[in-house]
Amino acid sequence: MSNEALELSINLVWVMLGAFLVFFMHTGFAMVEAGFTRSKNVVNILIKNILTISIGGIVYFIAGYAIMFGDTTNGIVGTSGFLLNDVDDIGFFVFQAMFAATCATIISGAVAERTNIMAYMAIVVVMTLFIYPVVGHWIWQGDGWITQLGFIDFAGSTVVHLTGAVGAFVAAAMIGPRIGKYTKKRVNVIPGHSIPLGALGVFILWLGWFGFNGGSTLAADPEAVPSVIANTFLAAAASVIATAFYTKLRYSYIDGSLTLNGALAGLVSITAGAASVSIIGSIIIGLLAGPLLVEGVRFIEHRLRVDDPVGAVAVHGICGIWGTVAIGFFDVTNGLFYGGGLTQLAVQAIGVVAVIAWTAITVTASLSLIKVFIPLRVSREEEIGGLDIAEHGSNAYEFQQDTFRGLTPNESFAHRLTTAGTKQTSA
Amino acid sequence: MSNEALELSINLVWVMLGAFLVFFMHTGFAMVEAGFTRSKNVVNILIKNILTISIGGIVYFIAGYAIMFGDTTNGIVGTSGFLLNDVDDIGFFVFQAMFAATCATIISGAVAERTNIMAYMAIVVVMTLFIYPVVGHWIWQGDGWITQLGFIDFAGSTVVHLTGAVGAFVAAAMIGPRIGKYTKKRVNVIPGHSIPLGALGVFILWLGWFGFNGGSTLAADPEAVPSVIANTFLAAAASVIATAFYTKLRYSYIDGSLTLNGALAGLVSITAGAASVSIIGSIIIGLLAGPLLVEGVRFIEHRLRVDDPVGAVAVHGICGIWGTVAIGFFDVTNGLFYGGGLTQLAVQAIGVVAVIAWTAITVTASLSLIKVFIPLRVSREEEIGGLDIAEHGSNAYEFQQDTFRGLTPNESFAHRLTTAGTKQTSA
Amino acid sequence: MSNEALELSINLVWVMLGAFLVFFMHTGFAMVEAGFTRSKNVVNILIKNILTISIGGIVYFIAGYAIMFGDTTNGIVGTSGFLLNDVDDIGFFVFQAMFAATCATIISGAVAERTNIMAYMAIVVVMTLFIYPVVGHWIWQGDGWITQLGFIDFAGSTVVHLTGAVGAFVAAAMIGPRIGKYTKKRVNVIPGHSIPLGALGVFILWLGWFGFNGGSTLAADPEAVPSVIANTFLAAAASVIATAFYTKLRYSYIDGSLTLNGALAGLVSITAGAASVSIIGSIIIGLLAGPLLVEGVRFIEHRLRVDDPVGAVAVHGICGIWGTVAIGFFDVTNGLFYGGGLTQLAVQAIGVVAVIAWTAITVTASLSLIKVFIPLRVSREEEIGGLDIAEHGSNAYEFQQDTFRGLTPNESFAHRLTTAGTKQTSA
Repeated sequence: MSNEALELSINLVWVMLGAFLVFFMHTGFAMVEAGFTRSKNVVNILIKNILTISIGGIVYFIAGYAIMFGDTTNGIVGTSGFLLNDVDDIGFFVFQAMFAATCATIISGAVAERTNIMAYMAIVVVMTLFIYPVVGHWIWQGDGWITQLGFIDFAGSTVVHLTGAVGAFVAAAMIGPRIGKYTKKRVNVIPGHSIPLGALGVFILWLGWFGFNGGSTLAADPEAVPSVIANTFLAAAASVIATAFYTKLRYSYIDGSLTLNGALAGLVSITAGAASVSIIGSIIIGLLAGPLLVEGVRFIEHRLRVDDPVGAVAVHGICGIWGTVAIGFFDVTNGLFYGGGLTQLAVQAIGVVAVIAWTAITVTASLSLIKVFIPLRVSREEEIGGLDIAEHGSNAYEFQQDTFRGLTPNESFAHRLTTAGTKQTSA
Repeated sequence: MSNEALELSINLVWVMLGAFLVFFMHTGFAMVEAGFTRSKNVVNILIKNILTISIGGIVYFIAGYAIMFGDTTNGIVGTSGFLLNDVDDIGFFVFQAMFAATCATIISGAVAERTNIMAYMAIVVVMTLFIYPVVGHWIWQGDGWITQLGFIDFAGSTVVHLTGAVGAFVAAAMIGPRIGKYTKKRVNVIPGHSIPLGALGVFILWLGWFGFNGGSTLAADPEAVPSVIANTFLAAAASVIATAFYTKLRYSYIDGSLTLNGALAGLVSITAGAASVSIIGSIIIGLLAGPLLVEGVRFIEHRLRVDDPVGAVAVHGICGIWGTVAIGFFDVTNGLFYGGGLTQLAVQAIGVVAVIAWTAITVTASLSLIKVFIPLRVSREEEIGGLDIAEHGSNAYEFQQDTFRGLTPNESFAHRLTTAGTKQTSA
Repeated sequence: MSNEALELSINLVWVMLGAFLVFFMHTGFAMVEAGFTRSKNVVNILIKNILTISIGGIVYFIAGYAIMFGDTTNGIVGTSGFLLNDVDDIGFFVFQAMFAATCATIISGAVAERTNIMAYMAIVVVMTLFIYPVVGHWIWQGDGWITQLGFIDFAGSTVVHLTGAVGAFVAAAMIGPRIGKYTKKRVNVIPGHSIPLGALGVFILWLGWFGFNGGSTLAADPEAVPSVIANTFLAAAASVIATAFYTKLRYSYIDGSLTLNGALAGLVSITAGAASVSIIGSIIIGLLAGPLLVEGVRFIEHRLRVDDPVGAVAVHGICGIWGTVAIGFFDVTNGLFYGGGLTQLAVQAIGVVAVIAWTAITVTASLSLIKVFIPLRVSREEEIGGLDIAEHGSNAYEFQQDTFRGLTPNESFAHRLTTAGTKQTSA
């Protein structure tokens, strides 16, 4: 094999590993969203997640990829490569398809527990068909108008996470809060049903992010990759610690679900700059992501009164913005703290504003259109009874009394204690 | 390092990644089978799964690999390489050992909730010792008689999945249904205890399948690998969507566990052809896998009245057959739709029939023999009381009242609401 | 690209894959520890786990790596490379940082359900700051005094697992048992709350171990890697089987949690010798690890009366010692069974004793110091009420009555049966 062929092979393995890990992030999202919602709506959120990666993949294959990476029309939109026609690098398509679905899946958590699954599927289609691909074209295709400004977003704090979060915010606001979330004077806490599922999801997402950021180098480059991975790892670590201590200060205890979400906040924040900031820069970005998350969740929930069950808008939106503008400060070449002046910061801000505007307008328009054909919400009765029975015909859980000859669990445990002498002995 | 050595290294990394992912599929199977069975039998199914990969690995090392990949005796059986004697490629052995255990583990789900664990272990031994290796020899060793016919089964729709499913079907039929599954007039639904565990398992299996199919190239080939991965991904995606909509039509709701199983149906179906069909072909194969699964589950459960708690026979058997014969239509070189005539289709059918016959006969004979020494089922009392207490001395779950100073969960939540003002504020 | 650059790239991919898998082991530890403890303490153990990898990563970046791999001072301690100053191989740092946190996280399981989280964080700091790095310097830096003796510990049966286990033992003993574990005459079983979570964790750890041992080659070497992986796989498999049968003999049933832990026992045991024993040697090492685990758990719990909720000391300590001394017997070059005499065995024993002494002394001293500032235990009231509400303000689980119009789950199931005719038909 020639050296060129060997290089292709190595880079293939690296990008495929990245694609597999980003695929696995969808497992992480599914578990986080299931864990942080109520047990009566768990089947629904799981099915929404598996449909997101499925629909997203197919739609991106049909047209999303072409609109994102096709030859540009005025830096605005791609117009070649539909159905991967004349596309050579199928591996790159696979990697990018996982990203597209990631952007879409951010919405599912924010609109959980009250959204009609048919309407949700329609949202996934529009997100992966053109809303996300257009943003991607502007920033990642190479000839996009935001790229031309010098905007930096290495792995997608803005392209993927902010776009998804704006979609999530608009959708959550239009669909409205869950019944019982808000009364005139109160904001009620609706706790998720399983922190272990949520924690599992967070760990999986963290793992997956090594592929998300690492794979975005598109090459197994011994210069670039290790820094990207170290930055990704340590920004998340710093954010977890910061969130734990910040919640301790703010609420007098280390909040469980916020600390877990703190990892995601750090990961979103370092996604834009993973390839261009220092390790110390990454740690600082992560340390600030934690408090930003905590206050962001509060701001959206209490001030804006938008009901986002899993905190997706704060994690992906507020931290997505933070990660993008942080480059203006921490980029080792053009950042303000490295003598680069305010130019990069301004460019980053322009990109953020443009993406927010585009996404907010198109998602609003799309939902308004979808609403004509499909109700966005389930009925009040279905919401109260739970979406699982109503929309899927089954509960998420069917715990039996785990009995042995008719004993309840506690009795059967006592029974074990007295009979199974082998498990309990005198000292 | 020479270019030859570099190539060896790259391919090693790729195949090891594949082996790790196929290993992880056993986690997926364990979670799917645990989630889709009742809570009183969960420890049992988990232990069966970890014993499957363990026993399968050791048995395949001792003799299974030799029978599968050893020098052939008349294209029927391998007869060299016991204990890996004179086997050079240990990496290939590792990859194949994970496959062998995958074939065996398909059975555990189908016979769940009533099978004696000692009898189950005996089944695993015979499957990985010779039933699966002989099939593998016929099709994958290179000199096997089915290979000589021109049969195509890239990663094992037939070799792994159909073989496992026939074993599962025969075993489930011989062991008989769970108590309460069938009455004279009724087929009762026995719901699984945790859809989240089942969903986690399905996602993990999907991830693992990228290694199952991708690694089967045995080389990090930039031509072959991306197509294989794209086909695997999109066939599964298409099948999920098809299953969701088909169950909506059939049952008026999007069925949760069938839609999740739909991913597996698509994956099994694309396993044979992942390297030789087009992306559009893959999507069509996946789209048809969904309804096939739904009707297959129904046919086995209602018409044949064989009790398969997790739907393993439909997923791995019916879709395994579909994936294998689909090559006769969709193979871009020899398929009927590409002008290849009926030859390939006939060859595929012969392979399928041969594997079904061999497996059905040998599994029937093996179980008949095992039954002489070990009862295949647990006692009626143990089955009703649950296999966990009876065979493993513990319950799968011990939820306490999660109390704070003696409060029940709801009271403690109310308590939190009234005292932990930080989590609830006035607007 | 030059051949040297290509080689760097390939090895980078391999080591990164290893690092990701070792990172994933932290998910495994989190799930094992959550599953094997009570539901009232689950948020706490999950947060401790995510804080361990986070704090461990940051501390190891600041100083731990320098103390471990910096230029040596008399073979005792490293003194260069703080904040990775002048460190070239960031990829190696990432891989090693995951190991450092692994050593620390072993403690969290042993001290679960009663330890103050602030005190626990302080333990993590001292473990990853100097206790583990000093051991690592002695054995892995190249110029350490134990290395000079000819000590072999390929991937860390002693460096990582024994060090962690000694820390776990000392901490569990000093902190004392959980309330209710011991009465004067009895040793009470306190069952974990979720075997499925525990099983998930064990499977993930097994997967992660392929990176732990495989990545420790630091190169995608087609000679070394396949053997390392095969040894790792089959030792674990053998240990699972041995544990299952040994518990069947000892307790008359196949114990669920011990059999799962049996996989970890085999993995810890093969970690030292994975690169220098034969496959048959690996299987024997694994077969003996099973009974050692079972008796080890009993010895620590019943004779020493140290309360280790997840069996971490037996898994990582007793099997860590076994794996390290087993090299004296099974090393294919210097082992006693291969004609190498007693020298290697003596060297292995010296290393083990030195690491136990160092770790026991420093952990005791550190905890004595920490105790001056932070109580090691939570209050009696908090322990009884559960650490989740007390320290994190929420329960791990909030299962609702999954109702459909006010029905209980069983009633709603009955309701489904009678109304959803599509799920139940006449034969």
